[in-house]
Amino acid sequence: MITGTTRLIGHIGFPTESFKSPMIYNPYFEREGIDAVVVPLGCRSADYPAFLKLFFGLTNVLGTLITMPHKVATLALVDEVSPTAAIAGACNAVRRDGDGRLIGDMFDGEGFVRGLRRKGRAIAGARALVVGAGGVGSAIAASLAKAGVAELGLFDHQGGIAEALGGRLSRHYPGLHVAMGTDDPAGFDIVVNATPLGMRAGDPLPVDVARIAPSAFVGEVVMTHEVTPFLAAVRARGCAFQVGTDMLFEQIPAYLEFFGLPSTTADELRTSARLV
Amino acid sequence: MITGTTRLIGHIGFPTESFKSPMIYNPYFEREGIDAVVVPLGCRSADYPAFLKLFFGLTNVLGTLITMPHKVATLALVDEVSPTAAIAGACNAVRRDGDGRLIGDMFDGEGFVRGLRRKGRAIAGARALVVGAGGVGSAIAASLAKAGVAELGLFDHQGGIAEALGGRLSRHYPGLHVAMGTDDPAGFDIVVNATPLGMRAGDPLPVDVARIAPSAFVGEVVMTHEVTPFLAAVRARGCAFQVGTDMLFEQIPAYLEFFGLPSTTADELRTSARLV
Repeated sequence: MITGTTRLIGHIGFPTESFKSPMIYNPYFEREGIDAVVVPLGCRSADYPAFLKLFFGLTNVLGTLITMPHKVATLALVDEVSPTAAIAGACNAVRRDGDGRLIGDMFDGEGFVRGLRRKGRAIAGARALVVGAGGVGSAIAASLAKAGVAELGLFDHQGGIAEALGGRLSRHYPGLHVAMGTDDPAGFDIVVNATPLGMRAGDPLPVDVARIAPSAFVGEVVMTHEVTPFLAAVRARGCAFQVGTDMLFEQIPAYLEFFGLPSTTADELRTSARLV
Repeated sequence: MITGTTRLIGHIGFPTESFKSPMIYNPYFEREGIDAVVVPLGCRSADYPAFLKLFFGLTNVLGTLITMPHKVATLALVDEVSPTAAIAGACNAVRRDGDGRLIGDMFDGEGFVRGLRRKGRAIAGARALVVGAGGVGSAIAASLAKAGVAELGLFDHQGGIAEALGGRLSRHYPGLHVAMGTDDPAGFDIVVNATPLGMRAGDPLPVDVARIAPSAFVGEVVMTHEVTPFLAAVRARGCAFQVGTDMLFEQIPAYLEFFGLPSTTADELRTSARLV
C-alpha cells in the first residue's frame, strides 16, 4: 500500500497504455513488503529533459525506468552511463548515486544474458550472431560482449547500423572479434533474432534456420507470441531456445539490484505478476 | 492495481512522511474499480513552480493535492483560482480544465461546511465565529461565507491577520457582515476553533466555553485527539459539535467531484480507508 514513506520508481515514456512494469513490480513489492511503487509517467519528448531532472529532485524517488521514446535522449541527460548503455546508445534505467549524480544503465541485454545463464548456457568464449542492430539488438550485443563472448556477428538490413554498433563494441572491447556483413548463422553457438520479424503473420524468418547448428542456442526478442514461427522452426531443428518474455522477466532482478532493492528470481516475478 | 492506463493524482508537499491521502483515496479507488491513484511527491519549495507545471504536462495526470509548504505559492502558479481559494489565500487542489488551463481551489473549509450540513445544521443566515485566521481558519471562513452565513466573527491573537481576512471576505461578499476584534462566542450559532490550541497538553481553551450558547454548534480543526479538551468542554455544556477528522473526510468527496471522479460519502471513505 502506498503511504507517505513510499519511494517512487517512475516509469517514464509515452504513450503509457501498454506499460507492463507496474503489474510486474508492484505485486512483488506488495508481497514482499517493500515500500516502493512503480508509477507510469506519460511524458512527451519536448518536456522530458526538464521533467527527468525535476523528478529526480523529489525527495521520495528511488529511480526511473525509461522507455520509448526517451531511451536514446537519456544518454545525454545523465552524469554517467555504463559501458553497456554507451554501446547500446540508450538507457532504460536511471538512479542517483550517493553524490546525487544521475547514473544511466541499460538492462535489455542483461535480461537476455541472465536468461541464457539460468538455462545453463556458457557465454564466455562463445560465438554469437545478433541479427538486427537497432535498440534491442545493440543492447543484447553489448551485454554479450560484457559477458565475454569471443566473437560477435552483427547484421542489419539497414546499411551502416551494424557497422556503427561494431565500432562502439570494438572501442570498449578491443579483444572482441566483431564480424559483419552476413546473417549466415552457420558456425555460431548463439543466434539471436533482434529484428521485429515474427510480429506480423507472413513475416519471413529472420535467418536461414537450416544453417543453424542443432547444438546452437537461439534467442528471440519478439513477444507477441510465446513461441514465434522462428522459435517453432529452430525447435523443430532441435535447438534449445529462449522466448521473448524471458528477456523481460530476467532483467527485472537486475533493475531491482540497480535500485538497491531486495531482489528475486525471474520465476518468482512471473508468479507474482498480474499481467492483464 | 496500477496499470499503464491509470491516471495520477499527485499529492505534492514536503515532507511526505505524514501524508494520509494515499491511504484514504487508493483503497476507495481499488474497491470501486476507479483507475486512478494518489502518489506522494516530495517536492522542495525551490523546485515547486517548475515541477507543478511539468507534472501537469504529463499525459496521465488527473490533478494534484497540494499541502505544506506549497499551498500559498500555488495561488500564483495557476491560471484561475476559485473565490474560496482567493479568500483563503491558498490552494490545496489543482486540476486542468478543458482548455488546459490550471484551476486552483481550496477544500479545507468545504469539508467543514459539508460536515455541518450532513449533521443537519443550517448555515445560510447563521452567525458564525471563527477563532484563528491562519490557513485553515481562512479556508473555513471563506467556505462559511460561500454557504451563506449572515455574520462572520473573526479573531486572531496575531494582529492584522483577521483584519486582512475580513477585507478579502468583504470584497467577495459585500453583503456579509464581518465582525472583528473579539473572541467572545456569545450570540453565535456556529463557533469554530481554527487555532492549534488543543494539540499540546496544557493548552488553554481557544474561547470562553461558558459564553457559548448550548444551542450553538461547535467545530474543531485539531485532529490529534478525536475529542479535544475544547470539544469535551462544549459537550459538557450540551453543544453539538464536529471533530477535526470529520473535516478531513468530508472534504474528500469535494476533491473527487473536482477531479471529475465518481464520488461517495465521508462515511464510506472512513470505512475503506486504511490509515496506519
